[in-house]
Amino acid sequence: MMIGDLFPITAHVDPEGYLWLGGCRADVLAREFGTPLYVFDEATLRERCRRYKAALAAHYPGPSQVAYASKAYLCLALVRLLAEEGLGLDVVSGGELYLARQAGFPLAAVHFHGNNKSAAELEMALDWGVGRIVVDNAHELALLERLAGERARPERSRRGRRLAIWLRLSPDIDLHTHTYNKTGLADSKFGFPLAEGLAEQALQAALASPHLELVGLHTHLGSQAFETEPFTAAVEALLAFAGEMGRKHGFRLQELSPGGGWGVPYHQDDPPAQIEEYVRAVSLATVEGCVRHGLPLPRLILEPGRSIVGPAGIALYTVGVRKTIPGVRTYVSVDGGMADNIRPALYGVRYTALAATKAHQPVEEVVTVVGKYCESGDWLIRDIRLPKLEPGDLLAMPVAGAYHLPMASNYNLALRPAVVWVKDGRARLVQRRESYEDLVARDAMSPLLEQTYTFGSI
Amino acid sequence: MMIGDLFPITAHVDPEGYLWLGGCRADVLAREFGTPLYVFDEATLRERCRRYKAALAAHYPGPSQVAYASKAYLCLALVRLLAEEGLGLDVVSGGELYLARQAGFPLAAVHFHGNNKSAAELEMALDWGVGRIVVDNAHELALLERLAGERARPERSRRGRRLAIWLRLSPDIDLHTHTYNKTGLADSKFGFPLAEGLAEQALQAALASPHLELVGLHTHLGSQAFETEPFTAAVEALLAFAGEMGRKHGFRLQELSPGGGWGVPYHQDDPPAQIEEYVRAVSLATVEGCVRHGLPLPRLILEPGRSIVGPAGIALYTVGVRKTIPGVRTYVSVDGGMADNIRPALYGVRYTALAATKAHQPVEEVVTVVGKYCESGDWLIRDIRLPKLEPGDLLAMPVAGAYHLPMASNYNLALRPAVVWVKDGRARLVQRRESYEDLVARDAMSPLLEQTYTFGSI
Repeated sequence: MMIGDLFPITAHVDPEGYLWLGGCRADVLAREFGTPLYVFDEATLRERCRRYKAALAAHYPGPSQVAYASKAYLCLALVRLLAEEGLGLDVVSGGELYLARQAGFPLAAVHFHGNNKSAAELEMALDWGVGRIVVDNAHELALLERLAGERARPERSRRGRRLAIWLRLSPDIDLHTHTYNKTGLADSKFGFPLAEGLAEQALQAALASPHLELVGLHTHLGSQAFETEPFTAAVEALLAFAGEMGRKHGFRLQELSPGGGWGVPYHQDDPPAQIEEYVRAVSLATVEGCVRHGLPLPRLILEPGRSIVGPAGIALYTVGVRKTIPGVRTYVSVDGGMADNIRPALYGVRYTALAATKAHQPVEEVVTVVGKYCESGDWLIRDIRLPKLEPGDLLAMPVAGAYHLPMASNYNLALRPAVVWVKDGRARLVQRRESYEDLVARDAMSPLLEQTYTFGSI
Repeated sequence: MMIGDLFPITAHVDPEGYLWLGGCRADVLAREFGTPLYVFDEATLRERCRRYKAALAAHYPGPSQVAYASKAYLCLALVRLLAEEGLGLDVVSGGELYLARQAGFPLAAVHFHGNNKSAAELEMALDWGVGRIVVDNAHELALLERLAGERARPERSRRGRRLAIWLRLSPDIDLHTHTYNKTGLADSKFGFPLAEGLAEQALQAALASPHLELVGLHTHLGSQAFETEPFTAAVEALLAFAGEMGRKHGFRLQELSPGGGWGVPYHQDDPPAQIEEYVRAVSLATVEGCVRHGLPLPRLILEPGRSIVGPAGIALYTVGVRKTIPGVRTYVSVDGGMADNIRPALYGVRYTALAATKAHQPVEEVVTVVGKYCESGDWLIRDIRLPKLEPGDLLAMPVAGAYHLPMASNYNLALRPAVVWVKDGRARLVQRRESYEDLVARDAMSPLLEQTYTFGSI
């Protein structure tokens, strides 16, 4: 793979060595909006949504849906784009649900996941008409039964109006990825284990419920996977369970969600990860499994997050200090780091970068790119070969669209970056940079928060 | 060590098994302000500031200062408290400097650290009269010389009015701590290496500057250390360098800052870390080193962060889902996790916790405490022995005052917690919890941000 393959589809480098994104020159964006800057290419966002839908249409003969996993990155503009592209939406919190509603997303196409939803979040979901609640555990099943019961009015008590739920199952399948990104093992906080009859007990309870309608089964193995085999094994596990439960308890599988988690390469040396390969494998496994277990084709729901937004986003940093420690290493510091991208420190991810204003200059040195935060864990790229970077140069890090901004902090009281979308030579500020004033907006002594509370001796 | 030793000095458990902090019952605080909730005990904050000052007064015969390292945690109320206690303040960014100024902190008592300060941040520091700029590298030294020169007016050009700086040195001393927390190795992005004459070159350049006055030397080895030996070695390295530079170049050491980094125990099994032991060792090393190298006693500046705020803070979580996987593990989910405390995932820190409403109930089981975020890295405590926790119970995690909130994110669009200070039975909301509205305050499509920007084809 070439570094260019990691960049958005509209990216190119001009003969002078300047990087362009969506028809905008990267250094002009940096000058206009400041750095660190996160740039998303709208064409790439839409293309990746469409590739998922087209691949499902090509390979899966039944009904299907692509539901975007919000936790990879969410903002109001992205919710709107996803609605325009006809995707569904996965949310895992009241906050994500709030954004969906604020942007006018059709809430019937929202699935609410999570291992420890609060009663308040579930009530919000019920009141707002969220399409599917993905029940993770017995506590939630009981809580939801109670909440749905409280809301059941006589005119809504017909079978078709019960609250539609999925059960999240834990099939004990090991994804080859970072430990933190594995979620389908038996030793997981997520889902009902297929083992020991725990999933069957939950299914029976759901089928017996007067207020809940069990329409689907879900699992999620983890994220950043490059092999299809764990996904097809998960589909087989879910379909085998559905077949058995159909025979034993009359369960009818209407919807099947083997989750998301398909990977993206972050570096030229990573394996490629074609959307079509993943969708084809999961589709075929579903068709074959349904034949094998005598099931009609369910609606197949795929839930990609990273593989839609990751490659659409670029992080732009301005180079600051260079420091050469003779015989050891040359450090190049940029104006961002672990506050906007904690993934190198947290998961050890290997990134790459392009000198965005001198991409054609010869590679001259091996450097380590670090941030400006007061910690040695604040590194971005170890040992990368680059042209000689000077203070003021611009560095473009590809595949920055997922899990950077959602995990960003104000560490060292850094301001979280601005987000710009580019398309056809136009740039649109989608999220403004934080301001110093924002840092004290929640402080009781700030003029911005005049209300103070005290409560007396207790 | 007992678990009680990890809690603030005002903490106690009443005969019914309820935890009290600063005269307030923890569950009442949780009900009033919601959870996750960060509670700081004001008495502990002040006591730890005073212990540092008293220990310096007892063990160091020269002038001294305790400067709080803001990166451990900062809010407006804390800046005010530190000013009341007569501490100095370390900042590492424009954001931290902004807070200091907003809270009315005397800026002459502020030291500005950082490996990649921007020109804008340095100009802000100069314009606002920050006491000491801690120069990290040759690029910064040149930049500062230029900026200070631009600001030098005739009436300020006398020797005494030059910009006071320290040099940060890198002595190649290995602290026994997490790799990410080591900052004093030769292979570090921080400081001028003592090796290869690099520090000497910087010192000569600073001494030759018409606009800068080199008044001190600084190093910082890292953080969360429990042994005094690396600190005394660092003092010796700095004093040996100062002595040599005095003989060779006429340098006069007025201020010595061997940084911060003294640890705190997070768990009963961690070693204790007495403030007095650390201060005494550094003080003695300074006195002995000055005698050895023929130097007058400099002003000794210590820069603790974690060891002041860490033990003063408690995180309160409400228990949600319990999940027992037979033969494997019992998971107890709480309503916070890696979004408010990423330290277990990032550094592998071992925490403990107290059942805050049933502290006297017998320990019944070994559980793993996890958060509510959609990731397996979202764990807080592995294999802790606790009374049987039920949904709605309150869990109190001690030593939560440092590096939790500063590194907190909106991951999964979680709302960052409220912060409450307790004292003498009264609770004061110091930072309000984030709201759903806050999550879109920076979004261009939000009614909260009406201004949008476009810029044309370029």
